[in-house]
Amino acid sequence: MSTGMHYAPEAFVSKACEKGEFPIAAIGLEHGHIFGMCQNLEAAGATVEKAWDKDPKKLAEFKKWFPDATIAANENEILEDSRIKLVATADVPCQRGALGLRVLEHEKDFFTDKAPFTTLDQLAAARKMVKQTGRIWAVCYSERVANESAVFAGQLIEQGAISRVLQVIGLGPHRLGAKTRPAWFFEKQKYGGILTDIGSHQVEQFLYYANAADATVVHSRVANYDHPEFPELEDFGEVNLVADNGAGNYFRVDWFTPDGLRIWGDGRTFILGTKGYIEMRKYIDIARNPDGDHLFLVNEQGEKYFSLKGKVGFPYFTELILDCLNRSQKAMTQQHTFKAAEISLLAQQKAEENW
Amino acid sequence: MSTGMHYAPEAFVSKACEKGEFPIAAIGLEHGHIFGMCQNLEAAGATVEKAWDKDPKKLAEFKKWFPDATIAANENEILEDSRIKLVATADVPCQRGALGLRVLEHEKDFFTDKAPFTTLDQLAAARKMVKQTGRIWAVCYSERVANESAVFAGQLIEQGAISRVLQVIGLGPHRLGAKTRPAWFFEKQKYGGILTDIGSHQVEQFLYYANAADATVVHSRVANYDHPEFPELEDFGEVNLVADNGAGNYFRVDWFTPDGLRIWGDGRTFILGTKGYIEMRKYIDIARNPDGDHLFLVNEQGEKYFSLKGKVGFPYFTELILDCLNRSQKAMTQQHTFKAAEISLLAQQKAEENW
Repeated sequence: MSTGMHYAPEAFVSKACEKGEFPIAAIGLEHGHIFGMCQNLEAAGATVEKAWDKDPKKLAEFKKWFPDATIAANENEILEDSRIKLVATADVPCQRGALGLRVLEHEKDFFTDKAPFTTLDQLAAARKMVKQTGRIWAVCYSERVANESAVFAGQLIEQGAISRVLQVIGLGPHRLGAKTRPAWFFEKQKYGGILTDIGSHQVEQFLYYANAADATVVHSRVANYDHPEFPELEDFGEVNLVADNGAGNYFRVDWFTPDGLRIWGDGRTFILGTKGYIEMRKYIDIARNPDGDHLFLVNEQGEKYFSLKGKVGFPYFTELILDCLNRSQKAMTQQHTFKAAEISLLAQQKAEENW
Repeated sequence: MSTGMHYAPEAFVSKACEKGEFPIAAIGLEHGHIFGMCQNLEAAGATVEKAWDKDPKKLAEFKKWFPDATIAANENEILEDSRIKLVATADVPCQRGALGLRVLEHEKDFFTDKAPFTTLDQLAAARKMVKQTGRIWAVCYSERVANESAVFAGQLIEQGAISRVLQVIGLGPHRLGAKTRPAWFFEKQKYGGILTDIGSHQVEQFLYYANAADATVVHSRVANYDHPEFPELEDFGEVNLVADNGAGNYFRVDWFTPDGLRIWGDGRTFILGTKGYIEMRKYIDIARNPDGDHLFLVNEQGEKYFSLKGKVGFPYFTELILDCLNRSQKAMTQQHTFKAAEISLLAQQKAEENW
């Protein structure tokens, strides 16, 4: 039984720079996502030089993954190290925004696990800081940028394989694995709610595949269906969006992955176009193939299956380093990054009003 | 390329009665669904004795399917034939309600293709007539009752395979095949709107799988995304429901099945329970198996695939005849039958208010 998620996707990542050209550090190791984030950046050319967390156990674990990294004496040692170009974090979600402000103030770029924010105020402060400093506030929306079927889907759409995108449906089930979770995971104010958290992946995917700049929350709902022992957990959430270009989105996120599934979640994405559709079975093809990265394309030419594991790579991480080095926005625009977070937060807010 | 739908599902249907005990007739042959409806009833023991439609071509086609049936001189010949126990119809949707009233007035049971009604007034009149006459007003929600994976899913849920049902997601894409469609198909007042029409299958499935008596429409939306040549066609519809027992439903229906799909629509149903989930690939397993009736079950015991074609049968049709003979409601309660239609009509109304 696999709990958690792909910490370290195995797909190839091409180098953005020579060794030593892009030193990075990690601050806040609360979620295991930090390993995948740093590993993918390392594969793309970054050097993971330093790490800090208030918990020595987490630092020891980090050292196992990155033996060459040194443990900093405190956060400031990293912030004040002018060699460090980017700080990555998977801190407690409610603390990521404030950390980002400190990182940008110190003239570094910032790369945070999702959810990047737990309140709209944090987002507003981040937008202001980006404007002031010109620095990059990147978010690791890994369910798209670190999944090869998801990357390939973007390429197919760009090639016109399904013509105009009309709708995206996302299913984002996750395994709860309650015993493996830290206390903050069950405290609403700290994790932000299910739509803010795992919902943000879904919003990002929608905006990306539909090539939309903005979207309206037309419906959202959260529930705690079956976990009375964790009163602040939302074990179910759903959102309907309509984008500025007319495309629609529905997604469901939940913590109901059954114990018998061979991976943490049977993530699916269905993209409906005017001339075809795409289905991704991102992490498993149930009852068939326990590996991930399956894509099905149906269009005027017929039905096609693509097994994509190890074949597409994760261009995002390479492009992110290049963006930091070249001050460009090719990996993901800042506007898109923040808009996905904003819509997730608005959907969360609307769902709570309805609850 | 297959247009339309399974007219005559091949699954076995057990006999409800001896030959000649349950004579039926067909009035209104506007949609090819009438063939499957009558064929399944025939397989369950009914004798298709008479047919009438104003169009001689449709009657000639009906005779090909049911050579022993006689062509009636007019509708009244059937209504006044006291031997006929049930009248089946696939008339223009807006006319089905009025026909049902005439059938029940003549002390017969009625079996209509979905959508049974195009307005709430028609539904109210039908409810009143059922109360007055004690007759059965059955609706052929074929996407559940005439699909073996859908029937089997109900059995699994009853056995507790996924514990409590929390949510149902239905995808009901259909091939437009515009050239094969009659004029009424594109006239809103006649077909009733996409949610009223193909959406009614989805509502029925939800109420059934969630074992819910009623549900609230929390969001609905219709669109004509890509068919300006048919201004009254809705080529896209979506609905979110919350049932009286708390279970949720989302469904999408559309007319965007691409030409390259080997069947009329890649219908899917995902049923999320507290201890597992079910996925049905009802009519095809894309890029793998062009036959239908695939079911995937994931629960605490693991991941299982069931190939169900020819293995489950359609108990509905046998039970419907028995209900008519015994005045019972085992195939489907009258309340459930009408409630599915009512919610579809309310969802349609709400979507139009939003449009």
